Amino acid sequence: MKVLIIGAHGKVGQRISKAMRASEDFEPTAFIRKEEQKPLFEEMGVGTVVESLENTPEAIGEVIKNYDAVVFTAGSGGKTGHDKTMEIDLDGAIKSINEAEKHGVKRFVMVGASHSDDRSYWGKVDGMKPYYTAKHYADLELKRSSLDYTILRPVLLTDEDEAGKVLMTETPDEVGSEIPRQAVAETVLSVLKDSKTYGKVIEMSKGEDKISDALAKVCS
Amino acid sequence: MKVLIIGAHGKVGQRISKAMRASEDFEPTAFIRKEEQKPLFEEMGVGTVVESLENTPEAIGEVIKNYDAVVFTAGSGGKTGHDKTMEIDLDGAIKSINEAEKHGVKRFVMVGASHSDDRSYWGKVDGMKPYYTAKHYADLELKRSSLDYTILRPVLLTDEDEAGKVLMTETPDEVGSEIPRQAVAETVLSVLKDSKTYGKVIEMSKGEDKISDALAKVCS
Repeated sequence: MKVLIIGAHGKVGQRISKAMRASEDFEPTAFIRKEEQKPLFEEMGVGTVVESLENTPEAIGEVIKNYDAVVFTAGSGGKTGHDKTMEIDLDGAIKSINEAEKHGVKRFVMVGASHSDDRSYWGKVDGMKPYYTAKHYADLELKRSSLDYTILRPVLLTDEDEAGKVLMTETPDEVGSEIPRQAVAETVLSVLKDSKTYGKVIEMSKGEDKISDALAKVCS
Repeated sequence: MKVLIIGAHGKVGQRISKAMRASEDFEPTAFIRKEEQKPLFEEMGVGTVVESLENTPEAIGEVIKNYDAVVFTAGSGGKTGHDKTMEIDLDGAIKSINEAEKHGVKRFVMVGASHSDDRSYWGKVDGMKPYYTAKHYADLELKRSSLDYTILRPVLLTDEDEAGKVLMTETPDEVGSEIPRQAVAETVLSVLKDSKTYGKVIEMSKGEDKISDALAKVCS
């Protein structure tokens, strides 16, 4: 499966790239923004394509059309302004979704954000409302599309090397407060080829289950 | 026709309120954000309801459901941050659209922004990209709805007392650079009861036609 990882240079994206490189099931390509991000992926043995989510839909589509699946894990990050949140997390995501649909790239895995369908939560974390708004509307576009999508919605991401055990639920009411990025990355690989996860929105945190068991529970 | 003017305290909103008060065809109510904005409308003889677009969809719906039509002319304004652009111009607008649909308030007139479907234009005016992004996606939600909508897309707004002559087109290629707010306000009144304007997106600037003639040309 040829997979385009949009946002591959991010902390989750790098973990996904590495895990796919180590798997026989995937042929990953890193969608990156800058030439200077290339060597990191060359060392990993992962191919790259340099393009920007700020470019036209057509330019983004020209990249996407060459793959079997898209993983969207880009984010403007906490250091940029809310203008970039709108440009990357909202418009960049929606352009990617629309172009995947246009070019018949049916499989789309979105790395979203827990609680992003719960407006009462958006104001609870200072300065995060624009981020949740963007993630909410990007996910809504994906849910309205004809794509075979899976939306993963992790809580606050941490940097442990191990994925550990997880909790996956359909609603965010029971999730914990943290989850390792590694768990999210490994879940992306697990869901990509699993048609039972099509059309599912999965809120996730640390928990008591192996990823495969957690997925089986929430996608039964 | 009982009309709810969301964003009535804005410069376009005040002109719409006044014009409706002077007409026998409309019973306007000003949707305003603050108690201290009330006296202005009381002096005008226009009723008010104090509510916030930052409130829940349900709270906004409880207001909207009492009217025959909604005019949306709210905007976070140039002085606030991009977070407010997302909260008001994007999420506030979409909540209003969704609630109008939910409560069967079929008629919806949006005061949008010229060029907001032309991404190549968004970056041309410094700092305006988030605004255009918000207007684009709010309008898209309206176009996807089952509402009897009309979207007016004026260029840069000016403060002349007179509406003057206008140009209305389906695409922004030929529009000029400015338009009086008074022309936008009078156009809102003209389109509200005109079913030929349902489902139309109208880019508008100063021009050579009377409002009625310009509408007839673009909505034939």
